[in-house]
Amino acid sequence: MNKKALAILMRARMRPTDPTKLVFSPLSNDVSQMLPNSRPNIEHHEDENEKLNKQRSFEIVRESMYSAISMNKTQVLDTVLNDFSEGYFSLSFENRTKLLLTLAKDYDLNRTQVRELIKQYLGIQLPNGGVEDEAFLSTFYRIERNLRHSLKPVYEILFERLNTHPGGLKFLTILRADILSILTEENIPSLRALDSYLKEKLSTWLSPAALELHQITWDDPASLLEKIVAYEAVHPISNLIDLKRRLGVGRRCFGYFHSAIPGEPLIFIEVALLKNVAQTIQEVLWDHPPIPESEATCALFYSISSTQPGLAGINLGKFLIKRVITLVKRDMPHISVFATLSPIPGFMQWLLSKLASQSKLAQAEDVSDSSTDGFGLTFYENLLEPEEEKALIDSSGDLAAGKNGMEIMLNLLTPTTHEWANSAKLLSALRPPLLRLCARYLLQEKKRGKALDSVANFHLQNGAMVQRINWMADRSEKGLCQSAGIMVNYVYRPENIEEYAQSYFSTGHIHCSYVVQRYLSSTDMSSTC
Amino acid sequence: MNKKALAILMRARMRPTDPTKLVFSPLSNDVSQMLPNSRPNIEHHEDENEKLNKQRSFEIVRESMYSAISMNKTQVLDTVLNDFSEGYFSLSFENRTKLLLTLAKDYDLNRTQVRELIKQYLGIQLPNGGVEDEAFLSTFYRIERNLRHSLKPVYEILFERLNTHPGGLKFLTILRADILSILTEENIPSLRALDSYLKEKLSTWLSPAALELHQITWDDPASLLEKIVAYEAVHPISNLIDLKRRLGVGRRCFGYFHSAIPGEPLIFIEVALLKNVAQTIQEVLWDHPPIPESEATCALFYSISSTQPGLAGINLGKFLIKRVITLVKRDMPHISVFATLSPIPGFMQWLLSKLASQSKLAQAEDVSDSSTDGFGLTFYENLLEPEEEKALIDSSGDLAAGKNGMEIMLNLLTPTTHEWANSAKLLSALRPPLLRLCARYLLQEKKRGKALDSVANFHLQNGAMVQRINWMADRSEKGLCQSAGIMVNYVYRPENIEEYAQSYFSTGHIHCSYVVQRYLSSTDMSSTC
Repeated sequence: MNKKALAILMRARMRPTDPTKLVFSPLSNDVSQMLPNSRPNIEHHEDENEKLNKQRSFEIVRESMYSAISMNKTQVLDTVLNDFSEGYFSLSFENRTKLLLTLAKDYDLNRTQVRELIKQYLGIQLPNGGVEDEAFLSTFYRIERNLRHSLKPVYEILFERLNTHPGGLKFLTILRADILSILTEENIPSLRALDSYLKEKLSTWLSPAALELHQITWDDPASLLEKIVAYEAVHPISNLIDLKRRLGVGRRCFGYFHSAIPGEPLIFIEVALLKNVAQTIQEVLWDHPPIPESEATCALFYSISSTQPGLAGINLGKFLIKRVITLVKRDMPHISVFATLSPIPGFMQWLLSKLASQSKLAQAEDVSDSSTDGFGLTFYENLLEPEEEKALIDSSGDLAAGKNGMEIMLNLLTPTTHEWANSAKLLSALRPPLLRLCARYLLQEKKRGKALDSVANFHLQNGAMVQRINWMADRSEKGLCQSAGIMVNYVYRPENIEEYAQSYFSTGHIHCSYVVQRYLSSTDMSSTC
Repeated sequence: MNKKALAILMRARMRPTDPTKLVFSPLSNDVSQMLPNSRPNIEHHEDENEKLNKQRSFEIVRESMYSAISMNKTQVLDTVLNDFSEGYFSLSFENRTKLLLTLAKDYDLNRTQVRELIKQYLGIQLPNGGVEDEAFLSTFYRIERNLRHSLKPVYEILFERLNTHPGGLKFLTILRADILSILTEENIPSLRALDSYLKEKLSTWLSPAALELHQITWDDPASLLEKIVAYEAVHPISNLIDLKRRLGVGRRCFGYFHSAIPGEPLIFIEVALLKNVAQTIQEVLWDHPPIPESEATCALFYSISSTQPGLAGINLGKFLIKRVITLVKRDMPHISVFATLSPIPGFMQWLLSKLASQSKLAQAEDVSDSSTDGFGLTFYENLLEPEEEKALIDSSGDLAAGKNGMEIMLNLLTPTTHEWANSAKLLSALRPPLLRLCARYLLQEKKRGKALDSVANFHLQNGAMVQRINWMADRSEKGLCQSAGIMVNYVYRPENIEEYAQSYFSTGHIHCSYVVQRYLSSTDMSSTC
């Protein structure tokens, strides 16, 4: 990197360490932080004139949107599309919402035409596979194609045109981020239909074939590195030394780039070259001078971040890991282990809600136990083993009260001060149940047959297995909040990737190591390992 | 280029100069020349065993095609897609046809499902734009989306999966080239429907946004340069010196590349840097030492070639010229004129058929003239002016007979020996009518409101104007066959490109220079200039 670029980077505002902002949520306001002017604050004291101006600028943008859709396909289009996207950025969030609703409703499909074509279509017989009149068949296929085309909303034209327009793909991702913002506030069916259509389009345009994998290094432009700092979603980059470290000896960073969105990766992955699979994130981020690369035997994927909130729900990482493994193996044949050190973002949320509901049920059961019939209407499950419950009650002392072990655990884990993490006694009492329940969460808690945890599901569908669950692996505020500091190593065995991905896909089966398997009591093991 | 690459290139078979093979027709067998094994000859004496083997290998490929479509989406897919595409290449043309028909018919859409969804769709009312029940609207949009999806043929899955598979996009273009070959032999409606669907898909994937413009130079790999030699469709490259020349001083070559088809351009354009707009192709291809680039004022586009027969009908050149102009202007601000020296591929075909039909009509008119009523039932048009006709009759001598000027002209121009081009007398007699009729062909002969000539239509829709028509500009066999040796200069004026493209698009209006305009008699000028 040259001096000028470095100077620019030094001035670049580093990401704030406020943990609530760590995850770059597609629905958060972060988009506007990235783009000056993208979502101007709504002024509280606007006078009539201002209102009129806003209305006028809304109408101008709507007009350019209309032209962008209805114009003949020539090169004048470029100007119109520029007007439209620039105009869009100048609108208030309120007017953007209004504009997007106009698009969703007024540029929907022509339903009169659809019904007309359906009538024609139903009027002719299905081809029966036998010898048919050629002209008849041609007509049949033509009507079918026309019907298919008529079912495409008119706004597809705008999406298609923007996609082939310089800067248009990026603009569409911003548009979608706005749409997702609006939809979290209110469920508007027409806008949701538009979103689902746009998402389908974006998925096609951003297929792995259209993405290029590049290594990101310290020699890349500051404008690119600044984005790595801004978008790092898993382990925030705190300063320049930290960034340089992640791109230096013993480290790799790879990104998926799209030619239409130059200078910023859509997703990137950070890799550490180590002697052994790391058990804590601290040793990856802050270890002493890294080992010589020639001594490394393990490539550890310790962070994967998507950069575009508007691409939420589109799986860009699908082939990323497989490609990175291929690249690393080619350059460094002495590396034979490919593992991750991954967060478990949904563990605490799941556990706390489980503890809350079960401890309530336990109390209800107690009440019904003491009633005459002796049959509870509800069946509760004690999430804790008897010896775990005893240890918790013994060690909790003044810190948390509760009618049973689960309630004590809930009261210990809920406060965001995480005092339990500073008490040796509590740590040792919480360790066995937390590790055991974490294994259960990762391996047995499913949603539509797939792992409930989003990161687990990501790696499992890519063909990984659950190798090891690590206690106190991430002591950061965020790590304690998400997963009581627990992290997990997923391992990719190149020779098993395809088999594991296939069995996970078809049966939901999760491969895991013997160590992880042991956390589960033998009676619960039907669906795993 | 290094020595090894050069050696490889030296050995590369140069394109044969057989003029019938000059145009790299999408429907020709050239595909198989490019790809060893792509279309094996059908053996004439195959015994029962061989037949059985062929049948068996057909079934294996069909099986892998089936798996490629029906498999769950995992990484095993890669292997299956490889099996399928390798298997496909091993099939005889006959079996490929059989396979493609299976794909078109058996993996078409599920019409029972379509009718079921249509029934559901017709069962609910249109949203009327007023306040509606949210749940109802959600259902409505869901059914609409399902109907839209159900109208997509099942084979779309195969296309989509191939597109995201390494080498798959290239494979799809070869598949389509085969489909087009089959369709020229027989019009099979189901296969035509498949082709039109595949073409739509390819157009989306090959949008200008997905294409990268690169300059091709002598430093590029021999494997790439070999393709330039093989694919040059306008002015065949005869030897290594010729190729080196086209990439050297005073010349540029730019190609559109797609990241999924590395190492070969999908379309490329050759540019000469000159002092003046060239009037003959010979001065471009064989001029003496080129002028210093700093003295050039004109960039002449003298050849545009598409390389993939399977991409026929997909306009890849749309933004190519505009982008090249921008690039050249940026690097060489002293260049202010952007022109082409273009073939007129359809002129002779149009002229000969016009001469044949009109001279027949003329004879019929003569007969009816000599009959008693004096009113002919047909109206013929003498394509020649009186003085042109006289000059032709005077100069034709023994070379061609005929009852009138048009028939003489027809008989002079038809033989592929082109003896007229060696006679000074005939050249001077033919020059005025040929230039005049060529202007008429370019400016006034339309098909669906657009220029009949495909090259003219290409440049006009890109925003060019017709600048000059050049006599004896291409004396090659091909030039004489296509357009009696005439070529045309189209000119791109950067400041008018958008306006001209727009007016051509919306009204079919063709801009031309005063010189070209003069060829047309004043009475005929309504639709031009």
